[in-house]
Amino acid sequence: MLIARWTAAVAALALAACAKTETPEQAQARMQAEADSVRPIVEAANANYSRWTVAKQSDSIAMLHTTDVTLMPPNNPAVTGRDGVKAMYDTAFAAGAMPLTLTMVSITANGPLAVERGAYRYTFTPTGASAPAMSGSGKYLAHWQKTGGQWLIAADIWNDDAPPP
Amino acid sequence: MLIARWTAAVAALALAACAKTETPEQAQARMQAEADSVRPIVEAANANYSRWTVAKQSDSIAMLHTTDVTLMPPNNPAVTGRDGVKAMYDTAFAAGAMPLTLTMVSITANGPLAVERGAYRYTFTPTGASAPAMSGSGKYLAHWQKTGGQWLIAADIWNDDAPPP
Repeated sequence: MLIARWTAAVAALALAACAKTETPEQAQARMQAEADSVRPIVEAANANYSRWTVAKQSDSIAMLHTTDVTLMPPNNPAVTGRDGVKAMYDTAFAAGAMPLTLTMVSITANGPLAVERGAYRYTFTPTGASAPAMSGSGKYLAHWQKTGGQWLIAADIWNDDAPPP
Repeated sequence: MLIARWTAAVAALALAACAKTETPEQAQARMQAEADSVRPIVEAANANYSRWTVAKQSDSIAMLHTTDVTLMPPNNPAVTGRDGVKAMYDTAFAAGAMPLTLTMVSITANGPLAVERGAYRYTFTPTGASAPAMSGSGKYLAHWQKTGGQWLIAADIWNDDAPPP
């Protein structure tokens, strides 16, 4: 009887201690560690993204996104789903060569949710050289979601740093 | 001695049980609940944001952002900090009236981190009616961060749904 009470008391104390939510400082330290561990994964995905814009592999680019992704290109309506991503890049790749470089600036993560801020550069050379090549640079914000053990882009939006020439 | 061992064993078991990480399903349910609780807070902040674009209160708009916010307007370089936000809106408000409406489309949250996707509408009426009024609509992604108990915008990027007329 005494042992039973004692057991209950000890278990209750231990659980009360562990149920205590982490302090803001502990949360910040944990999230910093999580961001550090996600960073190389997202950078590797970005390197693949760039590589596949050179290779014009729209299907591979699409697979970097969640099935219900929302992609938000400037001066166009939003595009949804992997089919939408693939179609958008198919249109771009048919019009010309469009190598794209993505550079992470910062990443914040908490569990399966991460937000990446970055910069991009591109050149666009129209097929058949019917028009002069153009280049540009800009900024983006990407919402990454860990889905089925894999980090994927759930939402992505970007815009240029300067108006078109 | 027996009680001491028993105590240690019970405490260890209780702690092991609570240290078990939540399942993906549990995480999803918790994050859904967190998104539901953040939604009205962000919607109220968006309503204030809109109201202050009508009232041209750039200082109040700036206070909706973290001190190290990055704001990413289309066709312009990124703007940083509350002073940057205030300066951007001061320039816009000096040029004319620019009421802005923000409508949340979705929000994902985990602890102090949230990502909001939304749509905006604006009209711009130049001061002195030197040029015709124009209007537009677009989409945005905002990274919200709970800082000192308050949800603030840490990064915000947007672009229009159509090219300028």
